[in-house]
Amino acid sequence: MRASQFFLSTLKEAPSEAELPSHKLMLRAGLIKRLASGLYSWMPLGYRVLKKVERIVREEMDRAGAIELLMPAVQPAELWQESGRWEFYGKELLRLKDRHEREFCVGPTHEEVITDIVRKEVRSYKQLPLNFYQVQTKFRDEVRPRFGVMRAREFIMKDAYSFHTDFDSLKATYQGMYDAYCQVFTRLGLSFRPVAADTGSIGGTGSHEFQVLADSGEDVIAYCPTSPYAANIELAEAVAPATPRPAAGAELARVSTPGVKTIADLVEFLKVDIRQTIKAVVVEGVEGEPVLLLVRGDHTLNEVKAEKLAGIKSPLTFAAPSAIEAAFGAKPGSLGPVGFTGRVVADRTVAAMADMVAGGNEDDVHLTGVNWGRDCAEPEVADLRNVVEGDASPDGQGVLALCRGIEVGHVFQLRTKYSEAMGATYLDRDGKQQVMEMGCYGIGVSRIVGAAIEQNFDERGIIFTDAMAPFTVSIVPMGYRRSEAVQAAADALYAELKAAGVDVLLDDRDERPGVLLADCELIGIPHRVVIGDRGLKEGVVEYQARRDSAATSVPLTDIAAWVQARLSA
Amino acid sequence: MRASQFFLSTLKEAPSEAELPSHKLMLRAGLIKRLASGLYSWMPLGYRVLKKVERIVREEMDRAGAIELLMPAVQPAELWQESGRWEFYGKELLRLKDRHEREFCVGPTHEEVITDIVRKEVRSYKQLPLNFYQVQTKFRDEVRPRFGVMRAREFIMKDAYSFHTDFDSLKATYQGMYDAYCQVFTRLGLSFRPVAADTGSIGGTGSHEFQVLADSGEDVIAYCPTSPYAANIELAEAVAPATPRPAAGAELARVSTPGVKTIADLVEFLKVDIRQTIKAVVVEGVEGEPVLLLVRGDHTLNEVKAEKLAGIKSPLTFAAPSAIEAAFGAKPGSLGPVGFTGRVVADRTVAAMADMVAGGNEDDVHLTGVNWGRDCAEPEVADLRNVVEGDASPDGQGVLALCRGIEVGHVFQLRTKYSEAMGATYLDRDGKQQVMEMGCYGIGVSRIVGAAIEQNFDERGIIFTDAMAPFTVSIVPMGYRRSEAVQAAADALYAELKAAGVDVLLDDRDERPGVLLADCELIGIPHRVVIGDRGLKEGVVEYQARRDSAATSVPLTDIAAWVQARLSA
Repeated sequence: MRASQFFLSTLKEAPSEAELPSHKLMLRAGLIKRLASGLYSWMPLGYRVLKKVERIVREEMDRAGAIELLMPAVQPAELWQESGRWEFYGKELLRLKDRHEREFCVGPTHEEVITDIVRKEVRSYKQLPLNFYQVQTKFRDEVRPRFGVMRAREFIMKDAYSFHTDFDSLKATYQGMYDAYCQVFTRLGLSFRPVAADTGSIGGTGSHEFQVLADSGEDVIAYCPTSPYAANIELAEAVAPATPRPAAGAELARVSTPGVKTIADLVEFLKVDIRQTIKAVVVEGVEGEPVLLLVRGDHTLNEVKAEKLAGIKSPLTFAAPSAIEAAFGAKPGSLGPVGFTGRVVADRTVAAMADMVAGGNEDDVHLTGVNWGRDCAEPEVADLRNVVEGDASPDGQGVLALCRGIEVGHVFQLRTKYSEAMGATYLDRDGKQQVMEMGCYGIGVSRIVGAAIEQNFDERGIIFTDAMAPFTVSIVPMGYRRSEAVQAAADALYAELKAAGVDVLLDDRDERPGVLLADCELIGIPHRVVIGDRGLKEGVVEYQARRDSAATSVPLTDIAAWVQARLSA
Repeated sequence: MRASQFFLSTLKEAPSEAELPSHKLMLRAGLIKRLASGLYSWMPLGYRVLKKVERIVREEMDRAGAIELLMPAVQPAELWQESGRWEFYGKELLRLKDRHEREFCVGPTHEEVITDIVRKEVRSYKQLPLNFYQVQTKFRDEVRPRFGVMRAREFIMKDAYSFHTDFDSLKATYQGMYDAYCQVFTRLGLSFRPVAADTGSIGGTGSHEFQVLADSGEDVIAYCPTSPYAANIELAEAVAPATPRPAAGAELARVSTPGVKTIADLVEFLKVDIRQTIKAVVVEGVEGEPVLLLVRGDHTLNEVKAEKLAGIKSPLTFAAPSAIEAAFGAKPGSLGPVGFTGRVVADRTVAAMADMVAGGNEDDVHLTGVNWGRDCAEPEVADLRNVVEGDASPDGQGVLALCRGIEVGHVFQLRTKYSEAMGATYLDRDGKQQVMEMGCYGIGVSRIVGAAIEQNFDERGIIFTDAMAPFTVSIVPMGYRRSEAVQAAADALYAELKAAGVDVLLDDRDERPGVLLADCELIGIPHRVVIGDRGLKEGVVEYQARRDSAATSVPLTDIAAWVQARLSA
């Protein structure tokens, strides 16, 4: 492509709306353009990147035996009512009415539609397993769209759905998709990690996320550097302490703590080790009754784990201050287990503590020397907290470390959640009706572009891998319209690389050399050849890979082969 | 692809919802599946066809210098309010509100969004011309969706938009796109015709439709078999009669015509030539006043032409019966120009008539021997009617014939309609601000599939061209799982054709031969190779093109080369 026949539009400064480096760089490089909150146009340069990602995703899906189709973006409400998600999905579901006042939504996902297709198409076990996928525009009405294409409202997703006679067949396809995902992200050149994950609102039993590792990621990943264990922090298990609970060593004492509201206040005021303190959170049970959750003072409550406790209202609901005062006789900041007659659930670590410091259930009063079984009843025990660095790995093979990631893929063993609700059944060998097992597998195609940039950039701009770059090679002539020699050399190299199937950009724009070079780096083209009169006099041009700190002089006669030798596959 | 690893699902009977052959065949062949009114999933087989169409469209757009991007499907209302179409577009625009109660629509077209992008991106004449395109899912909330993908609510469109400094530049790009469209439809193997067309609600000055010729088409095309003239009947000019108006030959006479309401009644009752009668239609002027439109009894009013008359209310509004009675003193069925003091517009043919038979403006009364200038004032004259077979061609080079077509493409010279409303300007060579000229160019990508089938089918099923077929070649083994020889020969041919880059289907399903052959014909695979034990004993297999009436025996050793020699490029 010649730049003069393409559309390049770069900015010196990113619009102030952008927070993350990838968002700023995508706007500055002209990959995307904002239309409205969470809505972006993919400009020609960005669309080339997106298409390269799509292509790799499609190739790996096809290779894994998934079959491509395309379902409508607009979906009738009836199907979502059948699955129960019309009510459950909340405001993220973009609902609308057509001219006949019938209800529809712009699909954020397609479990309902594919299950409807399969229940109509499949009669016999002989037709299973099946694995369908599509690459499609989705909509999720995020409460706070941000980070450009990483948390846009309209986005492009590859979503696949598999149907099976039994769990073993589901597990086999799940593994196949897991492997295909690894292949996709490897081919894209991303540093990523598959991690065990919570199934969230999609439902089902097992799930892995594919996380692109980046400091700015919204997700926290717990992993064990000395074992394969990796999980989203939402799911990562905090195991019980290896040492048993010590015997009680202190008397229960009442301490006046005027103005002490937080754990930090308490530690400061009493000069105690934070690991002796416990933090109290009150949530609602299924009947609205208060349930006291306890984690150690330096730990944080894991809301996903708390919501999964039996008897707890879903979604997790924190008790109102008035309800707390009525139940405990004190305001938040002075709550604790002693004297509370309702349900108490202690984190595993808390259950192994002795001589604790806790709220006294009286404003501005705390208790020290609190011991389970002596000062209050033994609590119900559960894993309630987020893991922290240094926690034992749940596989027993080391300790956990934390890092941040951007979720770009997610695979789920849905089992029979949708097939049962919607009646997707088949006749088995004995002619008996059975419910299908189901899996689903998503890749955030447009998000990948943002995540890749978040992981690969420097002060000069984006650093694309060969697989994703809008153009693999850029020829930058110094004075294309001023020097016949430069023009001839640039045109010849352009023709030669094009003929060899290289995706090459010839930057023949009438701009200053500094502008051309800066744009090339900002856009992140991985391979650059600079052609100038001075070099040509000596028969050389300058080659520089995007990550190289300096250029290499290469004879003009060798440059085409030199460049091609440096391209990945 | 092996059929056992693909998803084929054919039906013996089409669902009753389907009216057109293409719709029935697409459902029977399993190309599409209905989700809701006007919403279809593209099943794997159909999606292969769609992708082949998309690919050819993209190749020709790229070749024509258009640059691909991708705009959001969901668009903010503000832009449509700026262009004035938020009010104008009516119920076909699928409107919705997001969680913050902001108004959006699911885009049926993207003039507003692209104009917004260009007005922000383009500053100088140096950046023009530009021509952007996208291939995207659109939504039009049709009052009566039907004919499957031909008039679906959700559909896939290629839409391009060009921007220019002057009309000459617009005309050059318009011609380039016109040529590219011809190339697209030629490569797809369609019998089509570009026709001059009305610009309708899009606006602008010049326009051509690309019509796939088919008896079931919704559009009527007027063309001249002896000249290049062709136009949609909405636009086709009905020229004035070549012979001047005869002199008056009859006296004006009042005839009682009890119960006569229609032209057919009148001809029957009075035993007159229908070509002596005139038909009266009353529409509203801009102030709501009645305007009498007259066409010859055997002609039909062209509403698009009527709406374009100066002083006529838009959209065209027929006068209410009460308003007609008040103005004419008679009910519809007895209306005419004699005695009416309001505005009268006569079609060119009517203006050249003498001794006419018309309504008497009194219930159950008609007048004969009506003559212009004698019995009533000379009328205002305009082209008001639809052309009919045998009318003189407007280019003076023959007479018109009519045929039916399916619109699959449309190019428009929008001029400054959107750029002016939305302030898309540039600075010219003298630094003066100027409004851009604009063109837009659409192809109904998903509709093409239906139109192609509507034009190419027989009693056995679809007949695809090589360019559009889901698979170009089908290998149909008779007893793949029963005969080792058949399996070996089929596998070897499959491997050889695949290696040669042929898009081949090996139908290895465990079905009766009759089912395999019927499916192959229903689906419309253009080239078929049947492999059976009987033939193999003699070293031959059977080749048959989809349009061939009989098979040809071909030596097994030659069949791969034989098939490849029959494929179109």
